[in-house]
Amino acid sequence: MDFKLLAELYETELLENIMPFWLKYSQDEEFGGYFTCLDREGNVFDTDKFVWLQAREVYMFASLYNKLNKNEEWLSCSIQGAEFLKKHGHDGDYNWYFSLDREGNALVEPYNIFSYTFATIAFGQLSLATGNKEYAEIAKKTFEVILTKVDNPKGKWNKAVPGSRNLKNFALPMILCNLALEIEHLLSPGILEKLIDDCVHEVLEVFYRPELGGVVIENVTLDGQLSNTFEGRLVNPGHAIEAMWFIMDLGVRLNREDIIKKAVDITLNMLDYGWDKKYGGIFYFMDRSGFPPQQLEWDQKLWWVHIEALISLSKGYQLTERPECLEWFGRLHDYTWAHFKDPEFPEWYGYLNRQGEPLLTLKGGKWKGCFHVPRGLFQCLKVFKNIADKIEIN
Amino acid sequence: MDFKLLAELYETELLENIMPFWLKYSQDEEFGGYFTCLDREGNVFDTDKFVWLQAREVYMFASLYNKLNKNEEWLSCSIQGAEFLKKHGHDGDYNWYFSLDREGNALVEPYNIFSYTFATIAFGQLSLATGNKEYAEIAKKTFEVILTKVDNPKGKWNKAVPGSRNLKNFALPMILCNLALEIEHLLSPGILEKLIDDCVHEVLEVFYRPELGGVVIENVTLDGQLSNTFEGRLVNPGHAIEAMWFIMDLGVRLNREDIIKKAVDITLNMLDYGWDKKYGGIFYFMDRSGFPPQQLEWDQKLWWVHIEALISLSKGYQLTERPECLEWFGRLHDYTWAHFKDPEFPEWYGYLNRQGEPLLTLKGGKWKGCFHVPRGLFQCLKVFKNIADKIEIN
Repeated sequence: MDFKLLAELYETELLENIMPFWLKYSQDEEFGGYFTCLDREGNVFDTDKFVWLQAREVYMFASLYNKLNKNEEWLSCSIQGAEFLKKHGHDGDYNWYFSLDREGNALVEPYNIFSYTFATIAFGQLSLATGNKEYAEIAKKTFEVILTKVDNPKGKWNKAVPGSRNLKNFALPMILCNLALEIEHLLSPGILEKLIDDCVHEVLEVFYRPELGGVVIENVTLDGQLSNTFEGRLVNPGHAIEAMWFIMDLGVRLNREDIIKKAVDITLNMLDYGWDKKYGGIFYFMDRSGFPPQQLEWDQKLWWVHIEALISLSKGYQLTERPECLEWFGRLHDYTWAHFKDPEFPEWYGYLNRQGEPLLTLKGGKWKGCFHVPRGLFQCLKVFKNIADKIEIN
Repeated sequence: MDFKLLAELYETELLENIMPFWLKYSQDEEFGGYFTCLDREGNVFDTDKFVWLQAREVYMFASLYNKLNKNEEWLSCSIQGAEFLKKHGHDGDYNWYFSLDREGNALVEPYNIFSYTFATIAFGQLSLATGNKEYAEIAKKTFEVILTKVDNPKGKWNKAVPGSRNLKNFALPMILCNLALEIEHLLSPGILEKLIDDCVHEVLEVFYRPELGGVVIENVTLDGQLSNTFEGRLVNPGHAIEAMWFIMDLGVRLNREDIIKKAVDITLNMLDYGWDKKYGGIFYFMDRSGFPPQQLEWDQKLWWVHIEALISLSKGYQLTERPECLEWFGRLHDYTWAHFKDPEFPEWYGYLNRQGEPLLTLKGGKWKGCFHVPRGLFQCLKVFKNIADKIEIN
């Protein structure tokens, strides 16, 4: 594989297609913040502002400014979104709403913990880019609120009868694995270490189940047991694979080869488990017992699943040089570029049917924004550049 | 069309395939109530008990006992489910939980108003079948609770910020149209008339929008205006078409030819609007502006949509003799029987992909139970018998 060429391909796509799309079409110059509901060509089809996606775009522009290049357009795009969020995104106590209208009026209550986690990484990265202490404070305070909510993230909006069947979910420890490194500069070493230890333990020892053939499941009981229920049988291969590159990053940070090796094993196993042998691509949801899942969209192919898997495979190869990583990367790269990239208009499709055809032609919506595609392209190009540099030196 | 043969086909399917399936596979003889998560062959794959489906099955067996034939097995099946619900289904104040575990312990809080509406028709029909006053009381009390919740059905679980963007939803007035006739024997005439007037007004004057080319939409503002938002643009053709046979029934009851004619017009228009011209079948969700809907399952073909449309078309033909009703009925009958009926095992599939292939092979689950298929077969056979009898007399 020509890693230099690959790095160029990913970098060109990021710099010439994806980031210009969001810079040009998503910024709301009248009220601030970003439009994310953008059709195939980039036209706005809905003006609601979803806090997940607002925060992720602030994060993305600041993060690439910090990590890739000091593009002032990126920085000012990030700042304008952050100012909108600072003003309208939370209730005054850093409880982050789920959605706002175009003007910034709150629409949906702060029931969703991931509005908080993405706000944290957004203001964390932007504080690094700007040195602005207010942004750092917002990130730190929001992180403190998250820690008070870990045991019951939905709070009063939780519809489970108390004490009935309390399950814990994989998504929060998984996201905290990533968040830990994104706001490392704001945390005291003690807190950071404990956070990392807890998250790695939860992901690799609790949600990863060797007795099921090495599958990561979405929900377990509070004491870590399997639950033979719809939620307890649920598998989301993309989630599991995404978490593995967070673990690999932590493995590098902690110099822990054991967890890197385990994360690569799980990546390869979950790909094999989640791959659609008939039409290609990775299923969205599965049931670990092979029963019908609740989710009607179970067989669809989603952009983020495939892009996150490209990251885990490229990092897995970089860190272990296992040939299976490269083989899987090749297969997935071909599928992803052939099906998700729109050959006619900028940005990528998000939602394909099982057969690999666009199910929705939108480029952004309520859940797809400026995040997985650019983050994935960036992570992969960084890996490929690194490998290519090493080869040149040798 | 040979209506006698059609009536026989629908009756045979109901009596020899569908009802025996639920009698045999769904009854929990150990804890009471019904299993509804049944795989293609009828095996239980999950034991949770969803109050919607428990109540609908109680209703279905009691209703067919009342309306079709005095089968004592049906009555005792209905009673055993009702006793389970009476004991476990509500909190003591007729707030009906959303789900229970197998033993009857409450799992999900009573946030969903349709648990209440289906409990009302269940106990209403069973009180008619048995003369049991306790059942009648449960239906009446639950109905009173519903009336207190009409303005904010989700109560404290409503995640919309108060005063932000309050929309009202089509489903509740639609269901109340049907509920009114199902519990007529329990209501005082004044209350019944007001309920009917309100519902017919909401459905035909508020959610039906002539200015959109005659489309029924799912959500409008509290004062009945269009809302250019995801929710405000949402169209669910199956919902709209189902409501039309409720309206036709009310039209017959009130002797109102005008609303019958309007309901038939809307049925035909919504079928044309919702029909998938490429693969056949009726779409699940659409956006009235043609924008991408939020629902990833938008292009799927659901059993209840097609069965409810068969009812509206057959009643529409019976009441108006319009040939378009019969043409559409023929097309839809062919699609439905060819794709939803399982040629090998009992009961019908519930979920097809856009192409018409089974997406899930389950016969029952969290949302599909003993309800739409038997109710639809019963309603159609009644219509066809009635038409065939009239033809014979002439």
